[in-house]
Amino acid sequence: MSPEVLSYIAGFLDGDGCINVQLVRRKDYRLGYQIRPSITFCQKRKHRAFLEWLQSVFQVGCIRERKDGMSEYSVAEVKGVEKVLSQLRPYIRLKQKQCDLVLEIVAELKHSARLSPQDFLALAKKVDAFEELNDSKKRTIKSSQVAEFMRVRHILIP
Amino acid sequence: MSPEVLSYIAGFLDGDGCINVQLVRRKDYRLGYQIRPSITFCQKRKHRAFLEWLQSVFQVGCIRERKDGMSEYSVAEVKGVEKVLSQLRPYIRLKQKQCDLVLEIVAELKHSARLSPQDFLALAKKVDAFEELNDSKKRTIKSSQVAEFMRVRHILIP
Repeated sequence: MSPEVLSYIAGFLDGDGCINVQLVRRKDYRLGYQIRPSITFCQKRKHRAFLEWLQSVFQVGCIRERKDGMSEYSVAEVKGVEKVLSQLRPYIRLKQKQCDLVLEIVAELKHSARLSPQDFLALAKKVDAFEELNDSKKRTIKSSQVAEFMRVRHILIP
Repeated sequence: MSPEVLSYIAGFLDGDGCINVQLVRRKDYRLGYQIRPSITFCQKRKHRAFLEWLQSVFQVGCIRERKDGMSEYSVAEVKGVEKVLSQLRPYIRLKQKQCDLVLEIVAELKHSARLSPQDFLALAKKVDAFEELNDSKKRTIKSSQVAEFMRVRHILIP
């Protein structure tokens, strides 16, 4: 990908994109929770073609029409997020902290099948830091909740 | 300026910047109104350094601290707006219409001392189109108000 295109997208991401990582409850997961990294871009539907262009650049992620009239392009699988952020990282100027933390988490998640409960909990604590970075006002699941889950299920043996 | 930097800023402008042109009442102006083009970038105060970097790239415009806790970098003089937009234009992907219309208006405003009331009113009509392009919900002055002003003051002789 050309530096100009990546640079443009990094600017767009700094201005109007979202780099995030969240804890998501998954009843069918071994440890009860998923650590879900994501990159999201929203636009009015009239600019859906722009989101399709972004998707064509990275060849990962999905576009969906939200009920509020917006189109959303999101990349939310580990390898896709790593692919996008590792390419944009040299050009990002505002969201470096978010980018680096997600890349760090993603590097460990690639081996998530082998992650011990202790390692998973350590990662979940890194996720806690994210809410503050993004000035998020949404209610999110904290690592303390994951720890409690593991304690009750006797998953985490101290 | 390097294509990478301009491309980044174009992306940021498409995502979170504002290209605008407005009619502003000016009691000391010959025709009673100013056509005011502007480019604006807002960030939380913690990112003021980013706005200072933008300002250093273009060497035009001002940064101010708003009462709502945001910092704002704006370029609002004709030559400054022309300088910034003409450099960014090749890289802009979403706000081309706004960019081209402002560049068109700005090209005529450079000779504004010589603009006849008729020409000014024709330009003011182009400004009307802007509100729609930006999905603006703010109340703005329309060209019809300028026309009425000119009629009452006998500035515009049909």
